[in-house]
Amino acid sequence: MAVIRQLDSLAPDFDAQLEMLLAWESVADRRVEETVAEILHEVRRGGDAAVIGYTNQFDRRQLRSAADFTLSADELQAALARVEPEARRALESAAERVRNYHNHQRQESWQYREADGTVLGQQITPMQRVGIYVPGGKASYPSSVLMNAVPAKVAGVEEVIMVVPAPDNQVSDLVLAAAAIAGVDRLFTIGGAQAVAALAYGTDTVPKVDKIVGPGNIFVASAKRAVFGQVAIDMIAGPSEILVICDGKTDPDWIAMDLLSQAEHDEQAQSILVSPDQDFLDAVERSLEKLLEQLPRRDIAATSLAERGALVAVDSIESAIAISNRIAPEHLEVSVDEPEQYLPMIRNAGAIFLGRYTAEALGDYCAGPNHVLPTSGTARFSSPLGVYDFQKRSSIIHCSPEGADQLGQVAATLARGEGLEAHARSAEYRVRGK
Amino acid sequence: MAVIRQLDSLAPDFDAQLEMLLAWESVADRRVEETVAEILHEVRRGGDAAVIGYTNQFDRRQLRSAADFTLSADELQAALARVEPEARRALESAAERVRNYHNHQRQESWQYREADGTVLGQQITPMQRVGIYVPGGKASYPSSVLMNAVPAKVAGVEEVIMVVPAPDNQVSDLVLAAAAIAGVDRLFTIGGAQAVAALAYGTDTVPKVDKIVGPGNIFVASAKRAVFGQVAIDMIAGPSEILVICDGKTDPDWIAMDLLSQAEHDEQAQSILVSPDQDFLDAVERSLEKLLEQLPRRDIAATSLAERGALVAVDSIESAIAISNRIAPEHLEVSVDEPEQYLPMIRNAGAIFLGRYTAEALGDYCAGPNHVLPTSGTARFSSPLGVYDFQKRSSIIHCSPEGADQLGQVAATLARGEGLEAHARSAEYRVRGK
Repeated sequence: MAVIRQLDSLAPDFDAQLEMLLAWESVADRRVEETVAEILHEVRRGGDAAVIGYTNQFDRRQLRSAADFTLSADELQAALARVEPEARRALESAAERVRNYHNHQRQESWQYREADGTVLGQQITPMQRVGIYVPGGKASYPSSVLMNAVPAKVAGVEEVIMVVPAPDNQVSDLVLAAAAIAGVDRLFTIGGAQAVAALAYGTDTVPKVDKIVGPGNIFVASAKRAVFGQVAIDMIAGPSEILVICDGKTDPDWIAMDLLSQAEHDEQAQSILVSPDQDFLDAVERSLEKLLEQLPRRDIAATSLAERGALVAVDSIESAIAISNRIAPEHLEVSVDEPEQYLPMIRNAGAIFLGRYTAEALGDYCAGPNHVLPTSGTARFSSPLGVYDFQKRSSIIHCSPEGADQLGQVAATLARGEGLEAHARSAEYRVRGK
Repeated sequence: MAVIRQLDSLAPDFDAQLEMLLAWESVADRRVEETVAEILHEVRRGGDAAVIGYTNQFDRRQLRSAADFTLSADELQAALARVEPEARRALESAAERVRNYHNHQRQESWQYREADGTVLGQQITPMQRVGIYVPGGKASYPSSVLMNAVPAKVAGVEEVIMVVPAPDNQVSDLVLAAAAIAGVDRLFTIGGAQAVAALAYGTDTVPKVDKIVGPGNIFVASAKRAVFGQVAIDMIAGPSEILVICDGKTDPDWIAMDLLSQAEHDEQAQSILVSPDQDFLDAVERSLEKLLEQLPRRDIAATSLAERGALVAVDSIESAIAISNRIAPEHLEVSVDEPEQYLPMIRNAGAIFLGRYTAEALGDYCAGPNHVLPTSGTARFSSPLGVYDFQKRSSIIHCSPEGADQLGQVAATLARGEGLEAHARSAEYRVRGK
């Protein structure tokens, strides 16, 4: 069996094949939803005691009081001091670059004054308190701490609360070090639906937040979906994806490894290469076979490539971009000469990696832009996580007497057209001579 | 029985009373959800034929083909020509002001180049196609057409699709005229969950959209919630609310009518006045009694005031703002001298109306800012509908060889810390001498 399928975009059934390749639906699990609903209810009712109960049960811990799941600033600093100097330097360098990039996303309040003295505008304010969920246990993702916490701090959020489960009392020093570097304000070693509930409703110890962000397992995702509305949440992410467009002139090993770096995430991850050069597609296929063998996570990557990967032949780079716009990939690599020329044609993509030197992996860690990106085609209408996700806007209207006189007449006409008499009269009180 | 309750913010049980006053939860209705799920399923499967079937059934129509629910540009223009000149002028004036205001919200793409030649940035693109739901039947809201369609057009959305039900073949000329003025590209006279399904999945006639916005009944809200993820949606709105802060120096009739303009919307609407002047609160209560009698929608307004309204005594304007920040009202009127001084203290509000001349009703129709605003305390984390709701962002990364060399080493260190070898090697291919 081939390591990855090949498709021809000019084949008559290509559209149907592409649709089948992309098909992925998150399965709602009724039993998970019921369990989560019960946990949410119990934590809302029982507060800290319920959080402690579930945490001792699910994470095999022996918490006796909320103090046992609360980490102090000193403990974060101690973890930071314990990590290897090279890892610490890498984290600090990544955090600085992520902070610099996100500083460009800050939005400012604005106002303008009209000729009659009426002032209109928009006031931008940060959310007051935000919760960041960080997965724990075997999978330790310090980069996820940086990517979620740094934009919140850049936005001016007063208090960033982080939760991370510590099964069997284990929590990664790298994760705690990243929290210290990112400026996390308070940290609780709890996870699962019980942690989401604590953040959404508040307990004596865990403060209620305005928004919950960060990845988690199906219980965490289901809990976030259930508390949505009560608090804001980020997107519920699907499997990670990359689409590489290459003219055939990049080293096939480089492109193969870029595809593998996506495939090693999990078996449902999706890696697609689109090229007008059939010889290059064949060369990448051979590279994939060769390089796959060298990877510790080869089983996961092989399943991902076989089940969800594809090498697609097209007649031009423009056709490749048209396919990309249909797919709206999370990550889009444009590995060609003078890639900027194609930017205006690219409509739908979470992050765009231009040129042969821009490996997607750089964006995962340290280039600066966020690695929390819209998946499963949602780049048609969604954006990377950013500073704007932690700010909100209020409209400002300050009418001068002259402005109120003019606007009041228009408003009264329209209000009566909608049958709303009190609206009309409220406006007319401010109209002269009425 | 008093027309409205009075509360004292210094009373020991004020916090509990305020919480009870604000308590409102949207009730999920299992039977509605099941009906909606069936409609969504049938439209996804049956396309236009299913839409026609449901529309004939629910809206008492005799559609035979999709052409029967499609309005042409000529028909929109004909409706525009039919409306009274005063109404037409009012709509055109409102549309122009809304357009001017929303032009200030346009966001531009940006890039910056680092010393080693690496380019980082963010590309902003409009969504391609957006669907606007407009309620039909007795309630006719041309203002809602403007407030939803104009920001989409300002954002650069290529195709704005509007749906509006036409029960018994009736549709308001004002609504059609507003669609013509707002630049709606295509209009279908369908509504309910079947219209939401058509927009979310597409049919032969109705194109699939990227986002669905606009208000609707419980079937529409439930359908929007169900297709969320497949397409983007705006917030599911709760009842409308106003909080007025007044120093006691505005005419009590004016403030009473402002409260009534909210209360006349529906019985669950909420009107709250907060003032440090007890005599003024009593005067407004008397005004409410008097003015209520003069309103066509007095029964609705009376129920709203009695069940959800309140006059709250405080010790200062600052205390009033603190209460407002807790409530996070949809509409906040600050009817005091020199109201701008309080802007920096206001954290959570959908729209802020400053000064004695700024009736909230002006914002509903024609001041310029959007009237689609976060309700039920969600202004803690949500914003007015705006141009930004119809744009999306893509990150841009273009590493120079020098940049890739530096970043590759940092990324490889962090990737190995997370156990992701293919990530590390993909980055290292671009590091010199590796």
